[in-house]
Amino acid sequence: MAFRFALLGAGRIGKVHARAITSDPRAKLVAVADAIADAAQAIAAQVGCAVRSIEEIETSTDVDAVIICTPTNTHADLIERFAKAGKAIFCEKPIDLDVTRVKACLKVVESVSGKLMVGFNRRFDPHFGAVRAAIDDGRIGEVEMVTITSRDPGPPPQEYIKVSGGIFRDMTIHDFDMARFLLGEEIDSVMASAAVLVDPAIGTAGDYDSASVILTTASGRQCVISNSRRASYGYDQRIEVHGSKGAVSAENQRPVSIEIANADGYTRPPLHDFFMTRYTSAYAAEISAFIDAVEKGTEPHPGGKDGLAALVLAEAALKSVREGRAVKVSEIAG
Amino acid sequence: MAFRFALLGAGRIGKVHARAITSDPRAKLVAVADAIADAAQAIAAQVGCAVRSIEEIETSTDVDAVIICTPTNTHADLIERFAKAGKAIFCEKPIDLDVTRVKACLKVVESVSGKLMVGFNRRFDPHFGAVRAAIDDGRIGEVEMVTITSRDPGPPPQEYIKVSGGIFRDMTIHDFDMARFLLGEEIDSVMASAAVLVDPAIGTAGDYDSASVILTTASGRQCVISNSRRASYGYDQRIEVHGSKGAVSAENQRPVSIEIANADGYTRPPLHDFFMTRYTSAYAAEISAFIDAVEKGTEPHPGGKDGLAALVLAEAALKSVREGRAVKVSEIAG
Amino acid sequence: MAFRFALLGAGRIGKVHARAITSDPRAKLVAVADAIADAAQAIAAQVGCAVRSIEEIETSTDVDAVIICTPTNTHADLIERFAKAGKAIFCEKPIDLDVTRVKACLKVVESVSGKLMVGFNRRFDPHFGAVRAAIDDGRIGEVEMVTITSRDPGPPPQEYIKVSGGIFRDMTIHDFDMARFLLGEEIDSVMASAAVLVDPAIGTAGDYDSASVILTTASGRQCVISNSRRASYGYDQRIEVHGSKGAVSAENQRPVSIEIANADGYTRPPLHDFFMTRYTSAYAAEISAFIDAVEKGTEPHPGGKDGLAALVLAEAALKSVREGRAVKVSEIAG
Amino acid sequence: MAFRFALLGAGRIGKVHARAITSDPRAKLVAVADAIADAAQAIAAQVGCAVRSIEEIETSTDVDAVIICTPTNTHADLIERFAKAGKAIFCEKPIDLDVTRVKACLKVVESVSGKLMVGFNRRFDPHFGAVRAAIDDGRIGEVEMVTITSRDPGPPPQEYIKVSGGIFRDMTIHDFDMARFLLGEEIDSVMASAAVLVDPAIGTAGDYDSASVILTTASGRQCVISNSRRASYGYDQRIEVHGSKGAVSAENQRPVSIEIANADGYTRPPLHDFFMTRYTSAYAAEISAFIDAVEKGTEPHPGGKDGLAALVLAEAALKSVREGRAVKVSEIAG
Repeated sequence: MAFRFALLGAGRIGKVHARAITSDPRAKLVAVADAIADAAQAIAAQVGCAVRSIEEIETSTDVDAVIICTPTNTHADLIERFAKAGKAIFCEKPIDLDVTRVKACLKVVESVSGKLMVGFNRRFDPHFGAVRAAIDDGRIGEVEMVTITSRDPGPPPQEYIKVSGGIFRDMTIHDFDMARFLLGEEIDSVMASAAVLVDPAIGTAGDYDSASVILTTASGRQCVISNSRRASYGYDQRIEVHGSKGAVSAENQRPVSIEIANADGYTRPPLHDFFMTRYTSAYAAEISAFIDAVEKGTEPHPGGKDGLAALVLAEAALKSVREGRAVKVSEIAG
Repeated sequence: MAFRFALLGAGRIGKVHARAITSDPRAKLVAVADAIADAAQAIAAQVGCAVRSIEEIETSTDVDAVIICTPTNTHADLIERFAKAGKAIFCEKPIDLDVTRVKACLKVVESVSGKLMVGFNRRFDPHFGAVRAAIDDGRIGEVEMVTITSRDPGPPPQEYIKVSGGIFRDMTIHDFDMARFLLGEEIDSVMASAAVLVDPAIGTAGDYDSASVILTTASGRQCVISNSRRASYGYDQRIEVHGSKGAVSAENQRPVSIEIANADGYTRPPLHDFFMTRYTSAYAAEISAFIDAVEKGTEPHPGGKDGLAALVLAEAALKSVREGRAVKVSEIAG
Repeated sequence: MAFRFALLGAGRIGKVHARAITSDPRAKLVAVADAIADAAQAIAAQVGCAVRSIEEIETSTDVDAVIICTPTNTHADLIERFAKAGKAIFCEKPIDLDVTRVKACLKVVESVSGKLMVGFNRRFDPHFGAVRAAIDDGRIGEVEMVTITSRDPGPPPQEYIKVSGGIFRDMTIHDFDMARFLLGEEIDSVMASAAVLVDPAIGTAGDYDSASVILTTASGRQCVISNSRRASYGYDQRIEVHGSKGAVSAENQRPVSIEIANADGYTRPPLHDFFMTRYTSAYAAEISAFIDAVEKGTEPHPGGKDGLAALVLAEAALKSVREGRAVKVSEIAG
Repeated sequence: MAFRFALLGAGRIGKVHARAITSDPRAKLVAVADAIADAAQAIAAQVGCAVRSIEEIETSTDVDAVIICTPTNTHADLIERFAKAGKAIFCEKPIDLDVTRVKACLKVVESVSGKLMVGFNRRFDPHFGAVRAAIDDGRIGEVEMVTITSRDPGPPPQEYIKVSGGIFRDMTIHDFDMARFLLGEEIDSVMASAAVLVDPAIGTAGDYDSASVILTTASGRQCVISNSRRASYGYDQRIEVHGSKGAVSAENQRPVSIEIANADGYTRPPLHDFFMTRYTSAYAAEISAFIDAVEKGTEPHPGGKDGLAALVLAEAALKSVREGRAVKVSEIAG
């Protein structure tokens, strides 16, 4: 019998998840909700599912799980509502922009033994997954240094910048999760530097567009993150891990990998446009992992505490930029 | 309204096409037929379609097109039957192992204005397609030399070798089609050398497992093909085209592209296992192109004459090996 | 007429420079001095030059320039002596481990209008030079983010660690110079994290073996440096620069670039062993640039103030690790 | 004591060898001869050696060996003269354009127990040498298929074309030697196709500029060669060897290996200009191997019979093009 989803939010990332659902033969998208009727209708028409209100979905008996892709400021409320409604929940990151609100939300989920998975899609990328597998298999010995390069092809619209919570909570948060996924030890302190180099309007909105971060664990393992909101050559997503016996890295991916040689040199095409094409298989694997966990009754990973941990690192990074010092995770996490 | 397929033959390549059909939202697999009931049943259960006999499919009014994946010796008969039945036809290569039989078959198709596409999937690979596009865009000037490296991960079973028509008709035939796709000019003569280096049993069956071919066009353009039935490092599929202004190449693909560095050096994983995973997107694009052509009423490409042309080259190559000389295509094609 | 060198110090780096001198047809090594007579004799025999004492070289009329490769604690004194003696001076980094001593030394050089070049060989590597040229040619627009990965194949002997001044002054100092070479703007502040992950004995000696640094310029440009004293896969030396219009990178170099493919994957050999082979052509180009500057009467680059600037960054990094905060360059440089 | 060379011929390849000699500390260039006095003088001035006539060199007691870089039609005569004069001989390929003349020459050398090495520089390239070492170490099992891609950056001057003996004797001859170096078995038959695609003037001169060759050994091992007289992207020199357990390849080399990424893609610089820079280290290693052999009294490799064998293959290839058939090596070699 099919695993039945309802999709809350029919925007860009909602479409990505709708497509991901169609790739798992166990999954079925039953309903979609969106404040913008046309957006919901578009997905419904394409997939062949119903348009319902959030209230209707809350009480739908033919829905096993919801995928929350609505604006960030609604995430925590929806998680609480649907946890109480007994639905399994897959929520896009972040749970909320405020650490205290996230903690309160997770308590509610826990109190009703809710199932919550948070959308850190990169863990499910086959290449990054293979990096982690190489570490787990002892191929590089003990992890010592992680380097994450993560650059968007271009900055988001100004309206989005304003509600995004800033580059650390919106963009670097994926890298913070990756660092936790790869370091093999919890992070102890955060140092960060950030600036406005891409677009002054981002600075006007109180945010940064270029950032560098050093994460350090208690034993001294280090992770360096380099972020930019703009890369002319495409969606730059690289990871490397240096260990006591060797190193493992995942290079960039491109949709077409030909090479043209002429008097100007040897040229390969640009990278993927953005996450929708770069992480197609990651989104599919992510949904499958969610279904696996719910069907087996195990805790979905990454879960609420992973969402919280990444948000804490984002807050620590912001504090580090503002105060020009290393910020202990314990200062934020309490 | 959906474009409705019936699948004839539920073996390895039949499964590949069944999966390809599910990737085009316009396409629907209505029925599957196979002499082995269990094989047909397995696909029917997975896709949710009917099991029917070939006779039933021939008269089915809910079938727009058939995909012929049965043994090679049935291809020509089935093409004729279904062309007469008014179904659009997608047939796996080769149409037949005998040039005369292929010609007769194509005459029947023509007489009833049938639509026939032949399964040269590699033309639809995004990387090889981009190679062709680079040529068409004038990026490398006039095509002069094509190099095709094509090696299977391992030899097929002995029973298959016996009915395959030999390495040139079974394996190199894809490379012959690629050469025609890329050279931009018809081939005039063929030189080939072949040997048994991989498995003596292949020689016992009267076939070769390692072959080198030079194709030359009337104006002197050359294509070199290197084939082996065994490559320990995976399914080796590379193309490069050298032209008057530059060159373009498509490198090998691998499912996971991490790199592990240690005292032994830098290691990337092996290539794809075989065509089922290497050409997943090519098979999907191939079916979409078939639907496009049939829906628009245009001639599907590659069509019957492409199937014939590749077979003629295979026969010329075999003759070249046996007689130790350059064989003119006109000697075979008549 | 030949440009005549005397070499002070016949150890590992002295040999590298002796070889570099032989590669410029203008240069001639006239004399070598070393406290260990055998070491001096070995180079003298190989090159066919004289063994002299430092005092003798100071008064030699057949010596145009000296190359100082003696232990670090003698550098500043020797620079002063030979500047006063009217010899052009090429000195291995660092000038001294103490910022105040360096400043005093540079004043002496200036007072006698001495010519001083400091041995930051990497600026002369053809690949890194091409990175800088690409920036200068506007190929990547404005520089925004620099990433430097620099890992030694293995830690130096304990005795060396003790007198080296620590990882930042001994090893990262090259990366600090590279950052200045590539950022196009002076560095304003330094954040660093460091730990002992490779060898506890290094910690016992009061040093670190693994370090991450963020350098930030006044306008917000950022450079991230990742250092380790041990890399099982060879001498890891990579640079990438991300700018407003694109990025440029220089990959690792290996002595032999074959690739072996088998069932385990595709393997290329390890990197160069260490700087002696990795930077052979850089050392040669460095000496040529020194001769060029002296013969033309221009200021050699990188000069004393570059040596000072890199040392200041090293000191700032160390202070940042110890105090857990961003350290302004002005705090150190005065 | 130094190993003393005289250089016969001060043209392009003569300069290459003059430079190679300076890279071996055992070697000394004593004299240079050339019909064009200025050419000889230029090298003499640069290296600091004497200009002598060929006759003078023949009787010079301070010359241990000659390097023959004169026009091809003088090679055989000079080899005979200097073999009789008791000098060790390094001769640029080919020994002569005529197989009979080569055989006669080798007999003379043998009759006086002369030492003769033939200039197949590519055997000494570190990358190609590592390919051979990987084979010898059993890394790829039994050799089955060799692929050689060899393209010059541009065609030679018309005057050179006329005296070169044609593309097979002048250019492919290096690839024939490489094939013999790598196949591990003598070649039994040759098939070739050739055309004029680059420059009609080459055709007017009776030569070809684009060629494809299949070499087959008695046991069926195959080597495919692809040649062009023009490659817009530089000097294209690649080798790959496919064996029973794996494959090994040597990729192209470039003087600078940076990569620039922007909206047009990822671009690396063109390859080396030509052999003078591509094979710098190969020429140096070649001279060292020659000195090694002469000093140890062993037979230099590759020697006269290797020069003959490659020439025989060239003649067989030409015959194959003209007669449209596989030509047995025994037809030419007698």
